[in-house]
Amino acid sequence: MTARVLVVDDLEPNVKLLEAKLRAEYFEVMTALSGQEAIDLAIEHQPDIVLLDVMMPGLDGFETCKILKANDETWHIPVVMVTALDQQADRVAGLQAGADDFLTKPVQDIALFARVRSLTRFKQMTDELRHRHAAGARMGVLSKADLSAFDEKQATILVVTDEDSIPAIDQGSEHMPKHISVVYENDARMALEAIRRGEPDLVFIDLGMESYDPLRLCSGIRAFDTTRMAPILAIASKDETRQLVRALDLGVSDYLMTPIDAQELAARVRTQIRRMRYLEQLRASFDQTMEMAIIDQLTGLYNRRFLSNQGTRLIEEAHTTEEPLAALMVDIDHFKMVNDTYGHDAGDLVLKEVSARLTTSVRGSDLACRTGGEEFAILMPRTPKESAHDIADRVLRAVNSVTVKLSDGQTLDVTVSIGVASLDRSDNLATILKRADEALYRAKQNGRNQVIDEAA
Amino acid sequence: MTARVLVVDDLEPNVKLLEAKLRAEYFEVMTALSGQEAIDLAIEHQPDIVLLDVMMPGLDGFETCKILKANDETWHIPVVMVTALDQQADRVAGLQAGADDFLTKPVQDIALFARVRSLTRFKQMTDELRHRHAAGARMGVLSKADLSAFDEKQATILVVTDEDSIPAIDQGSEHMPKHISVVYENDARMALEAIRRGEPDLVFIDLGMESYDPLRLCSGIRAFDTTRMAPILAIASKDETRQLVRALDLGVSDYLMTPIDAQELAARVRTQIRRMRYLEQLRASFDQTMEMAIIDQLTGLYNRRFLSNQGTRLIEEAHTTEEPLAALMVDIDHFKMVNDTYGHDAGDLVLKEVSARLTTSVRGSDLACRTGGEEFAILMPRTPKESAHDIADRVLRAVNSVTVKLSDGQTLDVTVSIGVASLDRSDNLATILKRADEALYRAKQNGRNQVIDEAA
Repeated sequence: MTARVLVVDDLEPNVKLLEAKLRAEYFEVMTALSGQEAIDLAIEHQPDIVLLDVMMPGLDGFETCKILKANDETWHIPVVMVTALDQQADRVAGLQAGADDFLTKPVQDIALFARVRSLTRFKQMTDELRHRHAAGARMGVLSKADLSAFDEKQATILVVTDEDSIPAIDQGSEHMPKHISVVYENDARMALEAIRRGEPDLVFIDLGMESYDPLRLCSGIRAFDTTRMAPILAIASKDETRQLVRALDLGVSDYLMTPIDAQELAARVRTQIRRMRYLEQLRASFDQTMEMAIIDQLTGLYNRRFLSNQGTRLIEEAHTTEEPLAALMVDIDHFKMVNDTYGHDAGDLVLKEVSARLTTSVRGSDLACRTGGEEFAILMPRTPKESAHDIADRVLRAVNSVTVKLSDGQTLDVTVSIGVASLDRSDNLATILKRADEALYRAKQNGRNQVIDEAA
Repeated sequence: MTARVLVVDDLEPNVKLLEAKLRAEYFEVMTALSGQEAIDLAIEHQPDIVLLDVMMPGLDGFETCKILKANDETWHIPVVMVTALDQQADRVAGLQAGADDFLTKPVQDIALFARVRSLTRFKQMTDELRHRHAAGARMGVLSKADLSAFDEKQATILVVTDEDSIPAIDQGSEHMPKHISVVYENDARMALEAIRRGEPDLVFIDLGMESYDPLRLCSGIRAFDTTRMAPILAIASKDETRQLVRALDLGVSDYLMTPIDAQELAARVRTQIRRMRYLEQLRASFDQTMEMAIIDQLTGLYNRRFLSNQGTRLIEEAHTTEEPLAALMVDIDHFKMVNDTYGHDAGDLVLKEVSARLTTSVRGSDLACRTGGEEFAILMPRTPKESAHDIADRVLRAVNSVTVKLSDGQTLDVTVSIGVASLDRSDNLATILKRADEALYRAKQNGRNQVIDEAA
């Protein structure tokens, strides 16, 4: 694994030292000697991670971090603040500026590579989704991500440990928002099941556990698709460094050293939960995009695109199983007059009301689509010729019982005309819909508000 | 990094040995003692990789591999065949059955972990996209992936080496399909640039290179978003094992040992190119889905959804820059009559022709959308009130010059009516479109085929 690292420090020897360490491990390194240079480089070259010194003349590390985190093009890049060992206040300020992690000077190799690998791993795993999402946002299909929006949501932390409770964590909860609740589990197998069921939003694993190998628990979580990205925070004491390195290697998201600092705890929890919610949002966005591609926005019915895909499938299925299938074409009567007399808002209201009635008057296995302006198609699998007409009558009555109430208080009675066709052996989607459409045309010619079967 | 590994062998001691090795490195292991059991487990538990013994009673390894690769639920899981050392014929048969890689008995640790890590890394990186894609395929929005469909496409291999040519590769091309061409590059920096420009489909890196550190070249490719997933094949001699392990650690996709076996070469090339094309297809599918969400399928114009997102943005921009903006509402005259008299196919043809004329008669920066059945909206940024009417006239003439030729040879003359409105300080998208729509209504009342401005 490798990554592009941006090293920022106003002192050239510090920059050179980190650069040498990173390049020896085959990382690609960029360097900047000031906050402003760092921001310009980050925007232009999009590194995978930024190592940012706190003390710099001009823009200091905190200011630089704030600007990076507020910029649409750089907010997703993890920032590690490099602080002096004894500056606890710097850590708090860094977290408030949006930093993802810390390294203390002099920088230890283990900590350096552990932090860099762990932070870039998450970034690289989500880059694919993030790129697609950004494209969607540019097109206006998807909304932009906003990490801080997740902070107010209820979340649960599962702490897996042999102890009954870890006081520092309970104590830490003073600094944590009230909507985060902490649950303890002593049995690692039960914990794994709860995690697979998606119960906790964040898992703490005590590396001091003896009742079960804590590393086995980490790999057990990371080995499954569904929990591969679940946030895990390891809790380690100073003499558990070896296990910690192995845990980070297995993909643990972050760690806390004991004694646990309450403010650091709260900040790391917030970061991990934000990331998880962000990933969930990315995933949901794509499902939503796909839905947009097949759903008619105004009425919520399936659109013509879905009719041609899914309808073709239904008809092939009916041919294979030799089961009957019926098609209805439905058209709202005098719809143009509604639009012209009462305006488009009234027209839209009528379309929505009719669609709602169509949806409730067919079965879940039937396919109801809006095919054009005021026209709808319904495909009904396993529906014999004899009952198709009756079902169409039922649809007609369901719609015709609608009285649409306009915003100015006027009411409109709506009727529809329906054409019915049943599947022939030689039919494809186009031919059966055409016959239903011809029947619909005759229903219109015949005075509207009626059901007509296809010509015998 | 960890993964779930399915180990398949009819001899229990062999299974136990591999299981112990893998578990010691914190992999999760499932085991099967027959081909059929392996298939059932793979379908039910979806492992990240299958290690498959060739010689088994009943279904042998080749048959098992074929079945896994033909099943919709398991084709994407990498299969490593475990063969006897001297059985070259087994390798060829395994590749023909669709195996992704080989291990020879007795299995060496280095080779085992290198193969497992490298194959599961690619799978895990693409799992997110693949899951979303599968959801799209179930909805009928996206088509199913078909890896073998990529085999016939032209592809280029870039070989980075100090040599002028590597005879085995040229020689190997006898076994490779004719559409694959091989290009040599001695300068690693030039190679990196070519790779970043996306020129080669597959990169070979000679680990014996001395003019540039071949590992640095690997990390230089892997460190960039755009080339992170680019397929790289390392070429290593027996005494370059240490570099090879490091190269696999840096994310090289696969390797060939010298002397290079021609058939193995051809098979590995095919596998890598298939994977790359598959990833490209996944990426393209998502872009396509997003396009579907904003494009009207019939006419190719933007849809109402895009109008509300992008139109709102354009209007905000116009308010900010205090530049003018004009809106047109366009409606096809007597469209219902066309549909009723000539049928829906004729109606669709008219919609397409009119849309094509609208597209060509506005600027690239204008936003032309189909908002409903036969109605269109056009937003024109930086268009002053004085010229809006003239532009609308031009659009009217462009459309009215259309003669639509129906499939039965009849011709139809089409006209439109247009309402014009210009941006007021207090306008939002809805209010400006409403005024344009009211103007359109008056154009209709006034006898159609004309442009009317909003009421003064």
